[in-house]
Amino acid sequence: MSSPIDELLEQLRQFRDERDWAQFHNAKDLALALSIEAAELNEQFLWKTAEQASPDKVREELADVLLYAFQLADKYDWDIAELMREKLARNAERYPADKAKGSATKYDQLS
Amino acid sequence: MSSPIDELLEQLRQFRDERDWAQFHNAKDLALALSIEAAELNEQFLWKTAEQASPDKVREELADVLLYAFQLADKYDWDIAELMREKLARNAERYPADKAKGSATKYDQLS
Amino acid sequence: MSSPIDELLEQLRQFRDERDWAQFHNAKDLALALSIEAAELNEQFLWKTAEQASPDKVREELADVLLYAFQLADKYDWDIAELMREKLARNAERYPADKAKGSATKYDQLS
Amino acid sequence: MSSPIDELLEQLRQFRDERDWAQFHNAKDLALALSIEAAELNEQFLWKTAEQASPDKVREELADVLLYAFQLADKYDWDIAELMREKLARNAERYPADKAKGSATKYDQLS
Repeated sequence: MSSPIDELLEQLRQFRDERDWAQFHNAKDLALALSIEAAELNEQFLWKTAEQASPDKVREELADVLLYAFQLADKYDWDIAELMREKLARNAERYPADKAKGSATKYDQLS
Repeated sequence: MSSPIDELLEQLRQFRDERDWAQFHNAKDLALALSIEAAELNEQFLWKTAEQASPDKVREELADVLLYAFQLADKYDWDIAELMREKLARNAERYPADKAKGSATKYDQLS
Repeated sequence: MSSPIDELLEQLRQFRDERDWAQFHNAKDLALALSIEAAELNEQFLWKTAEQASPDKVREELADVLLYAFQLADKYDWDIAELMREKLARNAERYPADKAKGSATKYDQLS
Repeated sequence: MSSPIDELLEQLRQFRDERDWAQFHNAKDLALALSIEAAELNEQFLWKTAEQASPDKVREELADVLLYAFQLADKYDWDIAELMREKLARNAERYPADKAKGSATKYDQLS
């Protein structure tokens, strides 16, 4: 029985192959595509407060970011949930709860 | 029984609340944080070919992008797998397989 | 008598050549480097209001953006003041003062 | 007698004020706008080699980056040529020509 993540990856591979797009999908350009979608996501908030942004448009642009992020992970054959858990554990070490509490200071500047 | 996505979201909420960071996590700054991590991801490929980038570093930066993407979706109470499936279906309409085959042309320029 | 722009371009060329970096400076990676510096600029404002950002750090990161922008223009042998004037004139057409007044709406949505 | 930079800044102020846009132009959103234009610049190179990108489109997007960079500098009342010269001098210290020669290694990793 496959997970929602595996199903999405399978659909993304099929989407790519039906269009013969694997030839474009090197890791460097996938990362670039992701950052361009991230900018389109940010554009939804430009000259606005968070509340003034259209949730429908934010949702669409966030989806595009996630679709490229999944494709990049898949390019390297990585388990997406695993790499996220791993980094979250590392971030927890870098930002100890007692020192980081209520502060937006970057971890390497925490004393 | 919860999915890996739900488990990650629960861990992210706990991580945030132990540090009292909900006060910083408005949607505009979460999107901004995501795009900054996307740039750090791209930095791994700067002045390099895709193959020259360090997979370990790419993995870490991609994880940070995904962690913020999940937090932004969670801020809006969205189902992550659902919003991705929805957008993938829309992209399939925008880029019909027969017209897009082997072409990197942006969908609004396909004829 | 050379302009400040020409002097900066000359210094940038010398800086690059003393380090033998022309081999890395293709237009695609220069544009990528620019966007990474743009993200570092944005990082100064993350989780903050505009007023809370450190002007000294903003100044440094903005300088890096400009240095890459100048190098990219120089890669194509473009006159920087000229390309800016040209685009400003085009933007003035796209956003007629009477329609755009007081509105942050994107030009293609102005009616 | 004014420089091309001063003339451009004067035109940008006039462009902004005729549209009553100063209200939107806080430093945080100007930096965000700059990074969105930087992504549009990068989009010209997506799935392509540097040579395959359209110079005309690169020129337009680079111009938009520069226009926002100038407006951000002007927001802080900075002398643009001066801040660029200053950073170039700092970069020259960080990347000594003899150590950085022919290497794309980031300065903090030079030994």
